Amino acid sequence: MNFTLQGVDSQTAARAGVLETAHGTIETPIYMPVGTRASVKAIEQRELLELDAQIILGNTYHLYLKPGTAILQNAGGLHKFMNWPRPILTDSGGFQVFSLSELREISEEGATFKSHIDGTRHLFSPENVIDTQRLIGSDIMMAFDECPPHDADPDYLRKSHELTLRWAARCQNQFAKTSGVYGYEQSLFAITQGGTNEMLRAESTKRLVEMDFEGYAIGGLAVGEPAEEMYRMIEVSHPLLPANKPRYLMGVGTPENILNAIERGVDMFDCVIPTREGRNGRIYTRTGILNLRAAKYRDDFRPIDEGFDNYVCKNFSRAYIRHLLNVGEILGLQLCSLHNTSFFIWLTKTARAHILKGDFQTWKAEFFARYCHEQESDKR
Amino acid sequence: MNFTLQGVDSQTAARAGVLETAHGTIETPIYMPVGTRASVKAIEQRELLELDAQIILGNTYHLYLKPGTAILQNAGGLHKFMNWPRPILTDSGGFQVFSLSELREISEEGATFKSHIDGTRHLFSPENVIDTQRLIGSDIMMAFDECPPHDADPDYLRKSHELTLRWAARCQNQFAKTSGVYGYEQSLFAITQGGTNEMLRAESTKRLVEMDFEGYAIGGLAVGEPAEEMYRMIEVSHPLLPANKPRYLMGVGTPENILNAIERGVDMFDCVIPTREGRNGRIYTRTGILNLRAAKYRDDFRPIDEGFDNYVCKNFSRAYIRHLLNVGEILGLQLCSLHNTSFFIWLTKTARAHILKGDFQTWKAEFFARYCHEQESDKR
Repeated sequence: MNFTLQGVDSQTAARAGVLETAHGTIETPIYMPVGTRASVKAIEQRELLELDAQIILGNTYHLYLKPGTAILQNAGGLHKFMNWPRPILTDSGGFQVFSLSELREISEEGATFKSHIDGTRHLFSPENVIDTQRLIGSDIMMAFDECPPHDADPDYLRKSHELTLRWAARCQNQFAKTSGVYGYEQSLFAITQGGTNEMLRAESTKRLVEMDFEGYAIGGLAVGEPAEEMYRMIEVSHPLLPANKPRYLMGVGTPENILNAIERGVDMFDCVIPTREGRNGRIYTRTGILNLRAAKYRDDFRPIDEGFDNYVCKNFSRAYIRHLLNVGEILGLQLCSLHNTSFFIWLTKTARAHILKGDFQTWKAEFFARYCHEQESDKR
Repeated sequence: MNFTLQGVDSQTAARAGVLETAHGTIETPIYMPVGTRASVKAIEQRELLELDAQIILGNTYHLYLKPGTAILQNAGGLHKFMNWPRPILTDSGGFQVFSLSELREISEEGATFKSHIDGTRHLFSPENVIDTQRLIGSDIMMAFDECPPHDADPDYLRKSHELTLRWAARCQNQFAKTSGVYGYEQSLFAITQGGTNEMLRAESTKRLVEMDFEGYAIGGLAVGEPAEEMYRMIEVSHPLLPANKPRYLMGVGTPENILNAIERGVDMFDCVIPTREGRNGRIYTRTGILNLRAAKYRDDFRPIDEGFDNYVCKNFSRAYIRHLLNVGEILGLQLCSLHNTSFFIWLTKTARAHILKGDFQTWKAEFFARYCHEQESDKR
């Protein structure tokens, strides 16, 4: 993997870079669509290519449970299994073990949990999570971390972050002892923890940076804390993270969150908002969010976002998509997921262009002037 | 509307024709995908064009209830509402009033029913069903008929078929008194009834042919009767129907039903099997039906139908699609619906080519030799 900074904004910490992987190049800042279970929900792979999704996510926890590593290995890895030719990043499963599974027990060894699907018992350790990601064949693997709740007490937070550090070292060790199963190079990113405690966050970041990973995720945020605390943690991390390595803010977020984090030096984002909210008819446009299930769109024959360049806006009206959602047609879920994902990809791509052009802050202000105005008007 | 026969099989009653409508040309025999509520379930409009769907269906009953005629009229008709540039045929709603709604009451005037959605009370009459189809703007409209159950007693069947004849005359009268709302020509087809009673079916057919409609549907079949009785009714209809007008067998059917009906002179088919069974993982291939949910496909990395020319077969494995269905990913529904619809369109298109080539029977025998063999092997 190779990361090159192409430009840094003169007024903010915003950066534009290029990340080269075995499956192709990723231009940062970037929004990465989430394909948890080997599918970005309700979107076809050829459509992701059409939207110019340069990288997608998979999830180690979900893929380990189904289809399981044996099938992924027989397929020749996740890229071949799902026929996705471009880069894939896999989360390590840490977050899912703590958010989805039952009866988890954490020990020095790892996390024992019961599957949310069938109740079977499993152990995730730093070593076997690396082995699983080797079999998945993701271009970017994540270290196994403990993700504490945002209201964890300071004692727990410290112990948890120290455990995550020891696990990160074991991940790095296992990563060094193994190699790609399918003949191409994989990379390993560390995940910083420490909640919203500045001292712990700084310590976590420094210690992981000393261990010299290929990239760094800022983890354990977007779990319920106020956005301002999240931004503060990014600001704490910024000077401590090496400028020449990519930075990934996990699970974030709204357009506001993403642009504010880009401004603070973040390069990579993933979030289920576009597909999850899309399935509920919450549609992101350049003039704000539309709740497309609302009756007022019944005979609104304008496109979702007039002039926006995608299949949905060029071909269908708000009234038609509202009808599809209203009667429960699957096509409604498809079109809303496709549009929202397209919008988020456009957002980071456009931010990138303005960073390189040198007017990121001006563009951001203009974007929000228009975005927020209409969003409020939709609430009336 | 204009219908031209291009070829008739020398050994069977199979015919190849061309039907010209305001929205384009339909080559018969043809399978018409079903877009009941202004969407062919889980398939995008551009995908229907890619599959070369030459005509799709809408349903008067469903579209009248939601989105309703006011919205369709404001949109400029169903074609514009759903952005479908090619021909649309709408069923009159007769079948749905009798199969879906509650508390229907049939009188000379029409059918009063309660909506299956919200229990509101509505009257469908021959006149207002024509008016509704004018507002929908379908290229081919169907007359309003009563569709009796297949086990109706002979007395009821006779009375019902006579009512359908009187309703057909009123439909024709209303059709003549009105014209297209959107500036293009629409056509009206009659629907023969009479159940599986040869005498009544013949009488229904003769009387409707005397009234001179632009096309004829064979209705009230595929409602639970044995396939042999359905074929016999097509054979009874064949010599009575004018050779120079299109014949449409409503709601049919399996590949066996379709090819056996083509052999007996039928030109047009619609059926929800491809999408409905697709959503349940029942996949149609040239070698038979696959129940893709079965565990044996877990690590079957072959395409659904090796060498079949569509997006699904060229890009995804049985194992991948089985995984999607297994974990409940919407993409599984999309890919299965797309493949099955593609298969049914291919089936009638290929039948047509062989009718024109003069070897329809040979091809049909070869098709079933291969299709049935593997279908059985899948049951093991």
